[in-house]
Amino acid sequence: MYEYDTTVRVRYAETDQMNIVYYGNYAQYFEVGRAEWIRSLGFTYKKMEEIGIRMPVVKMEVKFLRPAQYDELITIKTLLKELPAAHEIIFHHEVYNEKNKLLTTGKVTLYFMSVATGKRTDMPEDLKLSLTPFFTANHSS
Amino acid sequence: MYEYDTTVRVRYAETDQMNIVYYGNYAQYFEVGRAEWIRSLGFTYKKMEEIGIRMPVVKMEVKFLRPAQYDELITIKTLLKELPAAHEIIFHHEVYNEKNKLLTTGKVTLYFMSVATGKRTDMPEDLKLSLTPFFTANHSS
Amino acid sequence: MYEYDTTVRVRYAETDQMNIVYYGNYAQYFEVGRAEWIRSLGFTYKKMEEIGIRMPVVKMEVKFLRPAQYDELITIKTLLKELPAAHEIIFHHEVYNEKNKLLTTGKVTLYFMSVATGKRTDMPEDLKLSLTPFFTANHSS
Amino acid sequence: MYEYDTTVRVRYAETDQMNIVYYGNYAQYFEVGRAEWIRSLGFTYKKMEEIGIRMPVVKMEVKFLRPAQYDELITIKTLLKELPAAHEIIFHHEVYNEKNKLLTTGKVTLYFMSVATGKRTDMPEDLKLSLTPFFTANHSS
Repeated sequence: MYEYDTTVRVRYAETDQMNIVYYGNYAQYFEVGRAEWIRSLGFTYKKMEEIGIRMPVVKMEVKFLRPAQYDELITIKTLLKELPAAHEIIFHHEVYNEKNKLLTTGKVTLYFMSVATGKRTDMPEDLKLSLTPFFTANHSS
Repeated sequence: MYEYDTTVRVRYAETDQMNIVYYGNYAQYFEVGRAEWIRSLGFTYKKMEEIGIRMPVVKMEVKFLRPAQYDELITIKTLLKELPAAHEIIFHHEVYNEKNKLLTTGKVTLYFMSVATGKRTDMPEDLKLSLTPFFTANHSS
Repeated sequence: MYEYDTTVRVRYAETDQMNIVYYGNYAQYFEVGRAEWIRSLGFTYKKMEEIGIRMPVVKMEVKFLRPAQYDELITIKTLLKELPAAHEIIFHHEVYNEKNKLLTTGKVTLYFMSVATGKRTDMPEDLKLSLTPFFTANHSS
Repeated sequence: MYEYDTTVRVRYAETDQMNIVYYGNYAQYFEVGRAEWIRSLGFTYKKMEEIGIRMPVVKMEVKFLRPAQYDELITIKTLLKELPAAHEIIFHHEVYNEKNKLLTTGKVTLYFMSVATGKRTDMPEDLKLSLTPFFTANHSS
């Protein structure tokens, strides 16, 4: 598995009149988590699109345990548990507040899609190579 | 069960550079669907807050089957399959485009919470009374 | 001049913890106002992009006089005072609440840009023809 | 005068199908700029609300010179040119990309409002004291 953590400060725009972060905005936090997860591997999602691969989200599951509030510096943990075998990749997200309380969990499934063909494709080889060491038996020894 | 359908026109702001609606924006469409569902029963979510009840979302599951695009007039079907027994209510949403293609499904769980006590509470009696006829054996006969 | 009015219901997502619509969200309301203004003339902004013209915003001025609140059905008045002489078009927006109180005014300047050349271009001829009757001396007689 | 600079990385959610940041999203960037500007003075906007003062935006002027794009690390310069004499404060914002090209300028006027009375009030004394050294004749000598 490979995990990377990012922090985001909650914007006023992201709150609603319940004085908490609007439930729909966690999708953006998860997106930021994935973008920084990829960057930490020496790749970027921007580069992914430049080489002709898009990653639309096909499924999302979110559990809202505790609310996030304005100006909190939240931590988004992004975790890949299994190396994608084919066109599908599943990310696990956890959002924590400054007191290290778990606020939200998310499971987001995306596809690798070729812009050229409009069909499903595989994870780019470069990214796969960067990830492989974290998914081998030796890695944890 | 009780269903109500609403239409929303996709805003430019809601698209992203994949030329489709950003995946996080469906939470807003579902919210609009629920607001109009409640309004169709002679109640409003605004009134709910005025009488001291808030409805935070505690869980959301979304499947993205086909993308919605700019300027499409999408239909959000909002469905309650079971009358809440206690503090929890589960809505089922389906989003269709103008060609009646199913784009997205969503299952959103919310709690009724008392603003005064900060504790879970029940659905307001008025709303329950409006809903009851749709969930009785006679209704479908 | 040519004016067209549209209504939008304020979403929960659009409020912030000040219990009013977040100031940044009026840009979306203005966008909706312009989209429906164009549609009322038998054209759409979608069609504009299909024929190779984009309209980036180059300037915006907004005055926030009174706040809009959750669930209010607001009216967005969109007004063109002068027929564009070249690549620039200036829209005037006014947002009213249900009691007909003026909440916000906006002045938004956009350019007509050719996607093919990346250069400034003119308003599409079709749209200009639809607008001309509203800007001739005879029209007001 | 007192200036503080903050960086923000453009999110996918913030782009639109023109492949640039949606014009309405700059209001959020300006908000982040102001929040970090205040924090740099040892105060926070969160604290402002806790002591009973809200700062609604009453006017905004934005010029869009060049577009910001996905994943760019933009710099938001936030500048106070004059110490507020009464309830009104005017911020000047400039957004730059990584190549130090000026993308956007903004001028945002806010009021200090007392939550208790609903009336205009003055800048909190603590914040004023932190700012004063930057606005005295001696400071620039």
